[in-house]
Parts: sequence; C-alpha cells; structure tokens
Amino acid sequence: MMHVSIQEKARVVKEASRVLYTCTSARKNSLLRAINTRIRSSITGILAANADDLARAREHRLSNVLIDRLTLDEKRIGQMIQGVRDVIALPDPVGRVYERVMRPNGLRVEKMRVPLGAIGIIYEARPNVTVDAAALCLKSGNAVLLRGGSEAIRTNTTLVNIITMALHDVGLPPGCVAFIDTTDREAVLTMLTQDRFLDVVIPRGSRQLIRFIQEHSSVPVIAHGEGNCHIFVDRSADLGTAEEIVFNAKVQRPSVCNAAEKLLVHKRIARQFLPRVTARLRQAGVEIRGDEGTLAIVPDAVPAGETDWEKEYLDLIIAVKVVDNLEHAIEHINRYGSHHSDAILTGTKSSGERFLREVDSAAVYVNASTRFTDGYEFGLGAEIGISTQKLHARGPMGLVELTSSKFVVHGTGQTRP
Amino acid sequence: MMHVSIQEKARVVKEASRVLYTCTSARKNSLLRAINTRIRSSITGILAANADDLARAREHRLSNVLIDRLTLDEKRIGQMIQGVRDVIALPDPVGRVYERVMRPNGLRVEKMRVPLGAIGIIYEARPNVTVDAAALCLKSGNAVLLRGGSEAIRTNTTLVNIITMALHDVGLPPGCVAFIDTTDREAVLTMLTQDRFLDVVIPRGSRQLIRFIQEHSSVPVIAHGEGNCHIFVDRSADLGTAEEIVFNAKVQRPSVCNAAEKLLVHKRIARQFLPRVTARLRQAGVEIRGDEGTLAIVPDAVPAGETDWEKEYLDLIIAVKVVDNLEHAIEHINRYGSHHSDAILTGTKSSGERFLREVDSAAVYVNASTRFTDGYEFGLGAEIGISTQKLHARGPMGLVELTSSKFVVHGTGQTRP
Repeated sequence: MMHVSIQEKARVVKEASRVLYTCTSARKNSLLRAINTRIRSSITGILAANADDLARAREHRLSNVLIDRLTLDEKRIGQMIQGVRDVIALPDPVGRVYERVMRPNGLRVEKMRVPLGAIGIIYEARPNVTVDAAALCLKSGNAVLLRGGSEAIRTNTTLVNIITMALHDVGLPPGCVAFIDTTDREAVLTMLTQDRFLDVVIPRGSRQLIRFIQEHSSVPVIAHGEGNCHIFVDRSADLGTAEEIVFNAKVQRPSVCNAAEKLLVHKRIARQFLPRVTARLRQAGVEIRGDEGTLAIVPDAVPAGETDWEKEYLDLIIAVKVVDNLEHAIEHINRYGSHHSDAILTGTKSSGERFLREVDSAAVYVNASTRFTDGYEFGLGAEIGISTQKLHARGPMGLVELTSSKFVVHGTGQTRP
Repeated sequence: MMHVSIQEKARVVKEASRVLYTCTSARKNSLLRAINTRIRSSITGILAANADDLARAREHRLSNVLIDRLTLDEKRIGQMIQGVRDVIALPDPVGRVYERVMRPNGLRVEKMRVPLGAIGIIYEARPNVTVDAAALCLKSGNAVLLRGGSEAIRTNTTLVNIITMALHDVGLPPGCVAFIDTTDREAVLTMLTQDRFLDVVIPRGSRQLIRFIQEHSSVPVIAHGEGNCHIFVDRSADLGTAEEIVFNAKVQRPSVCNAAEKLLVHKRIARQFLPRVTARLRQAGVEIRGDEGTLAIVPDAVPAGETDWEKEYLDLIIAVKVVDNLEHAIEHINRYGSHHSDAILTGTKSSGERFLREVDSAAVYVNASTRFTDGYEFGLGAEIGISTQKLHARGPMGLVELTSSKFVVHGTGQTRP
C-alpha cells in the first residue's frame, strides 16, 4: 500500500527545503528563537499530551525504561529549550568556502558548504528528538520530515504543531518541518521510497529498525549502528589509571553505545590487573565473563562463549580476554568489534600510535574512556547522532555533517579545448 | 538465487582491505608500478582477449558506439598505463590529520583520513575502467570487487589476472582486486546484499543500471546520475563570449554528462542573441527546440514539450527558453535540472554570485563552459566518477572521496564525570 499523503508530505518538505537553502543565518536563528518562545508558552499543552501518551503506555504495559524515555516534565522541557539555545549559538556552516584552487586556465574552483536539502528522520520513544533534530536540521538549512514512534504520537504531534506556529511567526513555509502521524510500518516503507524528494534518511533506534531501513530504503541512509566497544590494557599501562578508565567506561552509563563491552588485557600484566579490576567492577554489580586466560586468574568468572565477542550488552556485563600482545588485540578488535569506539591504555607512545592507526573504528582512543564519543564531548556543539558507517559522516555528527558541498567555479569565458 | 561464490569473494575482498588499510604509500605505489610493468609485458594477450570480445559483440550486433567503447588498441592501453602513472604521482590522502581540537578536559581530538575499506564497482562496456578504478581504489588503501559488463568479460578477466600477478609480485593478497565473472543480474543482486563485507558500491553506467542498484542495494551507494545541464545567458552577458561558451558546452562532446542540454536566455537580449547562437549551433548539426518565447524569435525551431525540460539528450539537441529574469532562470534550473552542472554568463557580479549561491547543483559556474566538470579539470588529478548525490561526495570524485575518516583521541587518563 502506498501512502499518498506521505509522498505529498515529502514533496512539500522538498519545496520548503528550497526556501531554507538560501535563508540567512539571522533568519534561521530567529526561527529557532520563535520555536523556544512557542515552547515556553505551551508547556501545559505539552505536558497534557505527554500524559496521554504515558497513560496509553501504561495500559500497554511498556517497560519502565521505555516509559522513562517517553516522559517529559518541566525540567526536560527546559533541557529541550536549552538545546535549541545551544544550536542558535553554533556557527552556521552553510556558505562557507573551505577549498580553493586556481587552475592553469584561469578557472577558480572552490568548494562551498550547502544544505543537504530534505532530511527524513525516523526515531523511537524520546520526544525530545523531535525538537533537537528539527533545530539542527533547520540551522543547517535543511527541511525535515519526522517520523516518531507510536508511543509518543500525541507529544510529538503537539511539538510539531508548536514548530509549525513558529515557522508561521517568522514567515517560513510549514513544510520546513513535517511530521508523519501514521504509525504503521507501511508508512515508513513509503517514506523510504521518496528518493525523488528526500536527500537522506537518518534512523535512530533499535538495531532491528535500522536494519529494516537499510534493507528497504532507496533514499541514502546514515546508519547509527551498535557499539561493541573495547578497552585494551597494554603491559605498560598505568594500572591505577586503567582501573579508573575501565570502571568509568563500563559502569558510568552502561545502556549507551559508547560504554565498554569488552576488556582485553596484555598477558604480562593480567595476573596483577585482573583481580583488582574485576573486584571493583563486581562491587558495582558487573557480571564478568572470561576466556580461558581470564578464568585461570578469575576462576569464578562466567565462561565466555564465541558469541560474546560480537555482542553489545548495553548492560552491567563485561567480557574479558587475555591477549598475547598489541597485534593480537588490534586483530581481535577489528574482527569482532562494531567499529564504534575502542581504546588502548598504554605507557608506550609507539604502541598507542600503532593502535590509533590500525584499529578501524569511528573513534579510537589512547588513555581515555570510550564514553567520550559524543558530539558535545568532541567539540561539535551538538549532535544529531553517531554514525557507524563510513560514508559521508563517521562518528558523532554535528551541523557540518548535515551539509553537502558544491563546486563553485569562477571563469572569464573559458571553454574546453 | 544466492551466488555463494560472490559472497565468498566479498568476504575475501574485506579480508584484503584489512591489509591495505595499513599499507604505506611507498608499498601502494610499488604495487601500481608492478601493475604497469605487467600490463606492458601482456599487451598481446590483452589485445587477443579484446579481439574475442569484439568478435562476440559484432555477432550480437552491438551498436557502433558500444563497440567503440569496448575496443582497446595499443594507444588506449598506453593511456591506461599513463592513467596508473598519474595515480602514482598523486599524494596519498590516507593518514592525513585534517582537523584538531583541544578540549577543556585536555583531550586532543583529531580527524584522520582512512580508507573506506571494501568498494564494489559495477560498470559497463569500457574495459579501461577495470584498471583506472583498481588503481584509484588501491592508492587510497581500498580493496575492490569489480563487476564489469558481459560484453567486455574476456578483456576484463585478462586485465584482472594481470593485476593479480602484480599483487603477487609485491606480496599483497589477491583479494585486493577481485572480479565477478558471472554476468547475470542475480550476481549483481547478490553483490548488493553484501553489506557485511562491502562498505560502498559505486555504479557507473546507464540510468537504468543505477536506478536498479539504488533500489536493491543494502550497501551504501554513490550514484552517478545524469546531467541535464543549463546555461543561462543574462542580459549583461558579453554575447560574443556567450556564443563561444554555449557552442562549446553543447557541441564539443555532446554525449557526456557535463554537456549543455538547455539554454535559458534573458528576454532583454533574446532578440539579439538567439538568431546568432542558433545559427551557429545549427551549422554544427544541432536541433533547436524552443518555448513560445524562442519560437517568436526563431520560428523554425521545434516546439519544446513539457518533458523536454527534464530530459538529458546526450545528443546534438538543445532546448531553449526565454526567461524574464535571474530569479526565473534559477527557479527553472532548480526545478527541472538534474543538479549536475549549471552556468550563468553575466557581466553583473551580484547576479553571478546570486546564481552561484542559489542554484543547487554539484557544480555551478559563472562565465565558463559546463564541460569543465571533471576530476582532472577541477585539479583532483584523477576521478573515479562524478557523483550527483549529496551524501559523502558531490561532483567529481578523486582519491580523497575514496576515503572515510576516524576520530583520533589522545588522552592522559580522562574519564567521563
């Protein structure tokens, strides 16, 4: 079944993207300020809509985690507003000339940042994404077609209505931010075939959702995959620092994609390091799984199976492996990892450099926690997500990653001989 | 039907990409020199294989254009060798650090260029692509799975065997350049589902081929779309220069994607400009199609239909439209164009700048022929093709566009609070 209304929405978003394409930074910022004004005066309405969604969620017995994600309160709305303010403060990448070459025939060839155009965003649960994603897309000159999860349908509809009013306030077309309020999968399928109108689709959500989208989309996708992140403790590592970093990367927030899932330990320091780090992790409720080398030192660890090495637990579980050397660690990470974020803890400069060069992940670290893989932490100011694919953008994506480029050529009458 | 052998080839290419990932520039260049040495000593064999393909092509009554594309001779093999030499001379983008930021917590966050990994290239007819594409992929540290057209199967197989020998000469695994010698469409379909092993697919060929690939691929695609290129002659243009540029863009090589297909003329100079430019084009055998405004001035032009404005002729045909002003021209180009290459010819600086900013195409020109949209002409040194999509790469793609990036983070024990 083809959702004609969704095709029409995609067309309208594309039309609106033409207007945003040439919007000045000043105008885009005044739109974002208008959105914040409208949010501030609509808090009661937002909370009422959210209460509706929450009542339905409880009726459908959604998990506590999902209900927490879905919940808005004044504090979270305040964070939403602060998020938009942060985006206002960011420099506008559009129009920036970032390469320039003079050709022998006198042509001046430049590369200029331009908006991507029309962006589709498919997301689940968290209604704050509606406002965050819209703000980032608008600031980078893009129109956006949003498709949120069915759990948050009332809240999202209210938030999009607020944005529509703000667009009206500053005289921009409503198609700059459109919303798909049909929650069936057919709606997503129709969205994924709108390559005539949409320039990119960015899915945020479960592995299953992203896989489904990659398989069915004729629109280019920027996928946000999982994080099976490793920490390798080299023989020359400072073991006190290593213990702090491993603990932080595993325990500080285990449910996120940049949390550590695997610990590789150089065999020369395993006997010294493993007892103390596993004891510390266990105090925080972490289950230790181990390979043979680990079990020889921590006999009460759970034996790790072959599937453990590829798994993203997103939970208080860590699998530990004793490795022979640096090469062995790099080889293991490149083979079993998800190429998200991986760290070496070492006192040897050349080992650190080799690890950084040879591990093929979106973010590679020496002597720091993997938990820093994040747009704010990397200095992008904000993020629309973390790409684990290699095309277009890899790792945390900020405003620049929501732009494309064009070649701008200045001639004086040149023809091709 | 699933081609197990193709899945296996993709896996082997991925394995080989791990070796190329850390290859030095010196080693990659010595591989490219070995390829040239092997080509030079195999000219007889290449020509014999090509003669086989040509005989079959004549049997199957392929068009003269296709047969010309398929044909190799000593001169064209010489160009192939020169192409590889050009790639050797290019700087290696891999390992280059191109962004660096110090964070308040002392983390040094850098962005480094890295190979994409394993690239699938699907192409038609021209066997020189086998060597050109392999050279560009290898120099940028990527392994490549090639799938050429059935017409060139013998020639391509011979060329890949030569590359395999060169890989052996320098001690690199044969999987660095693999070739699919099954020519059915099922083979392509199997290739397009190898997202576990392939990082990107680049199709080069007909609109139908590219469309088919976009619709069926779960591997990210960089599409090389068509070029419905425009030239807008503004009221302040130097009409002598304009005549030369329009003639060059339409006639110099009408079968390529950066040739002009549409001429937009400002109404204030249409009476003066159209008679001379259409007369000149007709002398070269160009058919003139026109809108009402054009027909009023060039009454014997063919009336243009609505479909003409979206068409890429790739032939000695041009459709001409008289427009009211600059906005009208920009609006027409953004609506009907293919966002490939579009030019304004003008004597007014502000009009040129507005055109460059507002026309949303991969390459925008002021006072030059659209025929310059090309990797060599833009100073990239070589090109793997011209992207008309907005993700990852837009316009001519050189070595840098065959790379991805990673965040490289240097810490001194930082954990996330």
